[in-house]
Amino acid sequence: MLQVNNVKRERLKSDFGEWFSGVLRNADIMDTRYPVKGLYVWLPYGLKLRNSVFAIMRGLLEGGGHQEVQFPQLIPEDLFKKEAEHIRGFEGEVYWVTHGGHDKLDVKLALRPTSETSIYPMFALWIRSHADLPIRVYQIVNIFRYETKMTKPMIRLREVTTFKEAHTAHATPEEAEAQVREAVNTYKRFFDELGVPYVVTRRPEWDTFAGARYSLAFDTLAPDCKTLQIGTVHNLGQNFAKVYDLKFETPKGKHEYVYQTCYGVSERVIAAVMMVHGDDVGLCLPPAVAPIQVIVVPIPFKAKEAPVQQVATAVVNELAVAGVRAHLDDRDLRPGRKFYYWERRGVPIRLEVGPEDIEKNQVTAVRRDTGEKQAIARQALRTNVKQLLDEISGDLRERAWKSFKELIHEADDVKSVKQVIEERGGIVRVPWCGKEACGRTLEDQTGGDILGEEFEGKRAAGICSICSKRASTSVLVAKTY
Amino acid sequence: MLQVNNVKRERLKSDFGEWFSGVLRNADIMDTRYPVKGLYVWLPYGLKLRNSVFAIMRGLLEGGGHQEVQFPQLIPEDLFKKEAEHIRGFEGEVYWVTHGGHDKLDVKLALRPTSETSIYPMFALWIRSHADLPIRVYQIVNIFRYETKMTKPMIRLREVTTFKEAHTAHATPEEAEAQVREAVNTYKRFFDELGVPYVVTRRPEWDTFAGARYSLAFDTLAPDCKTLQIGTVHNLGQNFAKVYDLKFETPKGKHEYVYQTCYGVSERVIAAVMMVHGDDVGLCLPPAVAPIQVIVVPIPFKAKEAPVQQVATAVVNELAVAGVRAHLDDRDLRPGRKFYYWERRGVPIRLEVGPEDIEKNQVTAVRRDTGEKQAIARQALRTNVKQLLDEISGDLRERAWKSFKELIHEADDVKSVKQVIEERGGIVRVPWCGKEACGRTLEDQTGGDILGEEFEGKRAAGICSICSKRASTSVLVAKTY
Repeated sequence: MLQVNNVKRERLKSDFGEWFSGVLRNADIMDTRYPVKGLYVWLPYGLKLRNSVFAIMRGLLEGGGHQEVQFPQLIPEDLFKKEAEHIRGFEGEVYWVTHGGHDKLDVKLALRPTSETSIYPMFALWIRSHADLPIRVYQIVNIFRYETKMTKPMIRLREVTTFKEAHTAHATPEEAEAQVREAVNTYKRFFDELGVPYVVTRRPEWDTFAGARYSLAFDTLAPDCKTLQIGTVHNLGQNFAKVYDLKFETPKGKHEYVYQTCYGVSERVIAAVMMVHGDDVGLCLPPAVAPIQVIVVPIPFKAKEAPVQQVATAVVNELAVAGVRAHLDDRDLRPGRKFYYWERRGVPIRLEVGPEDIEKNQVTAVRRDTGEKQAIARQALRTNVKQLLDEISGDLRERAWKSFKELIHEADDVKSVKQVIEERGGIVRVPWCGKEACGRTLEDQTGGDILGEEFEGKRAAGICSICSKRASTSVLVAKTY
Repeated sequence: MLQVNNVKRERLKSDFGEWFSGVLRNADIMDTRYPVKGLYVWLPYGLKLRNSVFAIMRGLLEGGGHQEVQFPQLIPEDLFKKEAEHIRGFEGEVYWVTHGGHDKLDVKLALRPTSETSIYPMFALWIRSHADLPIRVYQIVNIFRYETKMTKPMIRLREVTTFKEAHTAHATPEEAEAQVREAVNTYKRFFDELGVPYVVTRRPEWDTFAGARYSLAFDTLAPDCKTLQIGTVHNLGQNFAKVYDLKFETPKGKHEYVYQTCYGVSERVIAAVMMVHGDDVGLCLPPAVAPIQVIVVPIPFKAKEAPVQQVATAVVNELAVAGVRAHLDDRDLRPGRKFYYWERRGVPIRLEVGPEDIEKNQVTAVRRDTGEKQAIARQALRTNVKQLLDEISGDLRERAWKSFKELIHEADDVKSVKQVIEERGGIVRVPWCGKEACGRTLEDQTGGDILGEEFEGKRAAGICSICSKRASTSVLVAKTY
């Protein structure tokens, strides 16, 4: 089983771009022909996948005491430009609305590139006393970035159609710190549910979110061995609080600024799900998010069409009642074409119902991930299908993590880092003294980017690969998207 | 019961604006203090309400063979301006993005005011042969209108945050016509589910959607007796098809333009739900969309706190398992405050659990709409609560329709129309010869707007109230939002 996956990865590695476009098209995920750069059309199957993925996120956030809100998309220029560092980070990539109808607007309006500057002015109205804290809200919205680099569906967009951003406010720095850890744990559960492996790092200072004290990020690996940032968690300290005047009255009657955090995940995570589990044929979806978990294909045989159809329908109904997303493919096509059709779309289990199955009172189950066939007794259908879905989830996750870990390497000097990145691909762990100058040099000399220090990870000592001084920490380096 | 509602309406009629703002604030629906005209913030309870309402719509559309898609928000100017009539209808209210970062864009981008011009160019790529038809897609997205009139939350917005638009394409005009009727039936089921009464009219030609052959619209009545348009259905004929070159190959190998329809509903429907059922105290929500259907309030009594709490928790759990959205209010507040808190938020049923209830093995149910109290035996809890929710749904719908019908009047001449609109308020049915000049004069002289001819309604003859010629039809006239 594990070999299958490795062969697959070797192939995807060389042709990843082509593979990705093919999957978007063949699995009805997205139409990439919309006539504006960086803007794409979600097709029905892709949108269902997206909705399943973000439903898991919603559940996790609501369970963690977050409430869903929705803020306006347009931010007036004066509000947007209040936090100096934030605007420095974003002003190059903001779209501006300057006209309404035939009128020039008095105040230009930004299409939100992220929503700190629309949300926090409202926080200022909501927060009066310590009893109003903590606040934990989130929204799932579209955001805009004027990307000048090459755009890529789901990965580098001008309209990020699906951005989940959570924003919190707390009375103490300790609570904000605890919230950061909770957010990290929430995201871990989220990515684990999707079987997407990751490293969590603390981004170097020069790569911190504009306006944050520090930023943590989740990265996974694309088949071409570049890392893909799939989630970020920021401790904002009191930076925004001071700019937007977010003060609260303490139990002792003092007025203090709140401490804030924010954290986000975008539709990139869907690209990750597709890439991490997909293979030569196409998608291979984790059962948790597959729009269809079980496709039932009748295998008709002359004079046996009616009973086959009848049993196939009964099987779908039985599974649907048990909460399994099952679908009957009763189109007038040959079974082989149906098999291929649903394999490309990554449906985890195919159930075939033929005359022989009916005779033996069974169905034949085929796993999308391994191709394994097995007979399932009709009377144990629900239990066995659910168990098989669980097994597939577990196996997908395990295989993905195994491949991922094989691509994390150790190195001590610049030359090895460069060599590993260029020849083997993946992520390299290397000792670092912690100085920005050495970090930048390391990036320049290896052609990689520093992801950062591992969060809650190893801080093995050693010698900085650039200045040869004692290394206080080690960092992860990789080619990045 | 019905009297309660009429008294309520009299009061709301005079103070409707104030009532509406109060409910938005007191029921945590929206924060209207965002510092841009016509843009508002959805609060958690309001957003849950919105999501429930649109979940019903999703179910109805999917059941009717529609597939959900999502198109980009930005439309390049050249694409947007292709359909001349359409652009004439919208150019005064379109927001334009002219800059990205520090660059002036080569092609201005419109914030979609509706999505015909982004969707149909893609239809041109999707439609090749008759086998690709019909297409039925929908999306739920935000749209923008540069409103110069007074804005009002949910009713007249610059960012319509929640616009459900469906778009279809067909091989024949008959099929498009049938789709229009199906859309009308879908919307009827939708508004019936919400207990929102309506008239369906065919808008006069001068009020037709820009680019459509004809437009149908659903209107309901606000408490101030102005009509509120809550849904539209358009037969587009081949207008857009010709402009965007939507051709298909017929079975005989000919190439023909498709026939199209589109239909939309926005968050105005949520304003309608609030207005139609609300009363002096605040919201009164139909069970189908209430974020919380049953609020359980423990009535503690000294030394009886523990058993009361225990039973209240058991009641909530039992209802939750049965699929009822039940919530336990175990805050440290007096029961009276809790009652008021949830009444304002329109929760359909309050269940009180006190020591006496426990003794009698019952709970006390209080209806939000009528205030009626009744004991419910514990062993019949689930059945009785579900039955009560159904009763409330039915009663809300019936009362709303009764009030609505009382506000539809008949008139024969201009003077009576004007008098009814000004003094009694509501909708007036009046004979009309069908000429635009007479229609416009009727509007001018009465201060009302012509909604249109009733769709599938009475076409009683008579004398046109303006030119005194034989009337071919009658129209509905009202003050409108």
